[in-house]
Amino acid sequence: MTASFGPSYVRAIAPYIAGKPISEVAREFGLEEASIVKLASNENPLGMPESAQRAMAQAIGDLGRYPDSNGFELKAALAERYGVPAEWITLGNGSNDILELAAHAFVEKGQSVVFSQYSFAVYALATQGVGARAIVVPALRHGHDLDAMLAAITGDTRLVFVANPNNPTGTFIEGPRLEAFLDKVPRHVVVVLDEAYTEYLSADKRYDSIAWVRRYPNLLVSRTFSKAFGLAGLRIGFAIAQPELTDLLNRLRQPFNVNTLAQAAAIAALNDRAFLEKSAALNAQGYRRLTEAFDRLGLEYVPSEGNFVLVRVGNDDAAGARVNLALLKQAVIVRPVDNYGLSQWLRITIGLPEENEAFIAALEKTLVAPATRLL
Amino acid sequence: MTASFGPSYVRAIAPYIAGKPISEVAREFGLEEASIVKLASNENPLGMPESAQRAMAQAIGDLGRYPDSNGFELKAALAERYGVPAEWITLGNGSNDILELAAHAFVEKGQSVVFSQYSFAVYALATQGVGARAIVVPALRHGHDLDAMLAAITGDTRLVFVANPNNPTGTFIEGPRLEAFLDKVPRHVVVVLDEAYTEYLSADKRYDSIAWVRRYPNLLVSRTFSKAFGLAGLRIGFAIAQPELTDLLNRLRQPFNVNTLAQAAAIAALNDRAFLEKSAALNAQGYRRLTEAFDRLGLEYVPSEGNFVLVRVGNDDAAGARVNLALLKQAVIVRPVDNYGLSQWLRITIGLPEENEAFIAALEKTLVAPATRLL
Repeated sequence: MTASFGPSYVRAIAPYIAGKPISEVAREFGLEEASIVKLASNENPLGMPESAQRAMAQAIGDLGRYPDSNGFELKAALAERYGVPAEWITLGNGSNDILELAAHAFVEKGQSVVFSQYSFAVYALATQGVGARAIVVPALRHGHDLDAMLAAITGDTRLVFVANPNNPTGTFIEGPRLEAFLDKVPRHVVVVLDEAYTEYLSADKRYDSIAWVRRYPNLLVSRTFSKAFGLAGLRIGFAIAQPELTDLLNRLRQPFNVNTLAQAAAIAALNDRAFLEKSAALNAQGYRRLTEAFDRLGLEYVPSEGNFVLVRVGNDDAAGARVNLALLKQAVIVRPVDNYGLSQWLRITIGLPEENEAFIAALEKTLVAPATRLL
Repeated sequence: MTASFGPSYVRAIAPYIAGKPISEVAREFGLEEASIVKLASNENPLGMPESAQRAMAQAIGDLGRYPDSNGFELKAALAERYGVPAEWITLGNGSNDILELAAHAFVEKGQSVVFSQYSFAVYALATQGVGARAIVVPALRHGHDLDAMLAAITGDTRLVFVANPNNPTGTFIEGPRLEAFLDKVPRHVVVVLDEAYTEYLSADKRYDSIAWVRRYPNLLVSRTFSKAFGLAGLRIGFAIAQPELTDLLNRLRQPFNVNTLAQAAAIAALNDRAFLEKSAALNAQGYRRLTEAFDRLGLEYVPSEGNFVLVRVGNDDAAGARVNLALLKQAVIVRPVDNYGLSQWLRITIGLPEENEAFIAALEKTLVAPATRLL
């Protein structure tokens, strides 16, 4: 008998497919790193704010020491910014850590988790990782069908993931609709509201999810510093929830899950409103530019409230892979989404103006070129 | 009915107690941070190597991007250094992440995990976190009783944790004894050999655990950059195991679990042999100094192969807490170990010469002072 390690539900997991790093694409395609445009991972094209760089520089002398396990200063800053007690905050090694912790803390083997088709891939991974059953609710116009999600909750459901805006589709649920949904979710079912892209919302779309946290003891809001705040490489996210949920996350949280530099940089980035505004403005401008180009090229896209756009690049199921490869050869990295069952589509992160132009030029060349030339 | 969230095994976890950070002790006791000596968390008193600081500085421009999910360059450096294929390496957010991943990857609810009394607290936490049963084998002279651990393995055991040297006791198992143990463990039971302190071993104690990984498909060696390598604040550790185990860890690993700066710094620290040698020499010298003082004060201690010493500071069960408080008031932070059932003992990290002297002076003052003066 061959030994076979691990629970069957772990052996069945297909690992997450990350965006290709620039260095890997350079190696694979024999390109200069500097020539590559990466619009693949919904990163902030402005990079890290200078304020965060300065804060980090001050913390560098201390790296032989473990980080502050309780994140005292960062939690104090978050508590002040969002108007909640520090005891309502859990820090994560990116919000990915928060999502995984939520699955571990609230769900056990054999129970179920509800989330939407075309929502963030980590929900499925976190669900499988605890041996739970995923109830995947068919999407409505690429977004969450909240009524169907409510109806899908069964007796053994312990967790519902809702992404707003959603990744990889960019769809958005208006505040009042989300509130009505929260009101109907059974109180023993935890709702993780993943707001990784919330800082990109225009003023008219904003809603106060922290007020909902005060009202609903079963609501956990997840946020990240990896997107608009520009700190993806440092790994830092956080959750806001009432003490009962927070306490359970803390029991499972690795005591030193958030490194020292991430804590220091996050405090600075949190208070750098000018950087956030600049990022959002640049994003709005890039969104207009990309969608104008898609309109001109006759390409269908999903209206997005995030820092990315999902665009349909062909009508056959090899279209996404084919156009992706052609773009790679032209030194443009975007994100194929066939693992989401969206093989005719690609997800394009909104970049700097010159990066958007380089992508549009490469896309146009790909779509008008004879199939044999670039593919 | 009050809603009660989460599996019962999660609600039963008592969170890890980290060493008090300097800033927290300063706040609590009204001390100047600069005056505080911290010998509480087995950190390298030399701090981070300069080579790693230089490597980090070069990576700082890239922090708006996600880290390399596959850790290409660091894995290549580790593969070369340890003579294994890169595919045998898993990177972790500290070796704590590796230990947690091992529990999640190899054990499910209702199965059991074997480890020793007085071994690292995270083994119990990781076991509880997956709803497994801990089989805690009584220690032999504060160390692992390998025969008893073998005998304790039951039909539902899927994982054994062995720490060598062990934390918090500093005990060491000679290579040949460990090899004989590995030879007898059933092949379907994974052994995690936690070698967080291996770089501190003197030449005559060294053994080749990587050769064992080649021989035993059920062996996983866990290492960290948080101790002798001096990178605790950055969070980086790794596992070496054959592909079947490695593949399972990778299915559960958070895709961006190791931040960009940790990856860059680890490559530099790995190749900085001079820093490692200096750290080990400083540690050996500090160990002699501390144990001479303990001998002089008539205090029992456990002979240690790590960068710390477990010392018995009294014969009543309040001794550890009492002496710890007295030391805190004198601006010296050490580690109480009553959570390990060692309430008469304290764990002292070996520091810089002047830090060791400050501790010895404060300890001496505490032990000879009338009970009312300092306590």
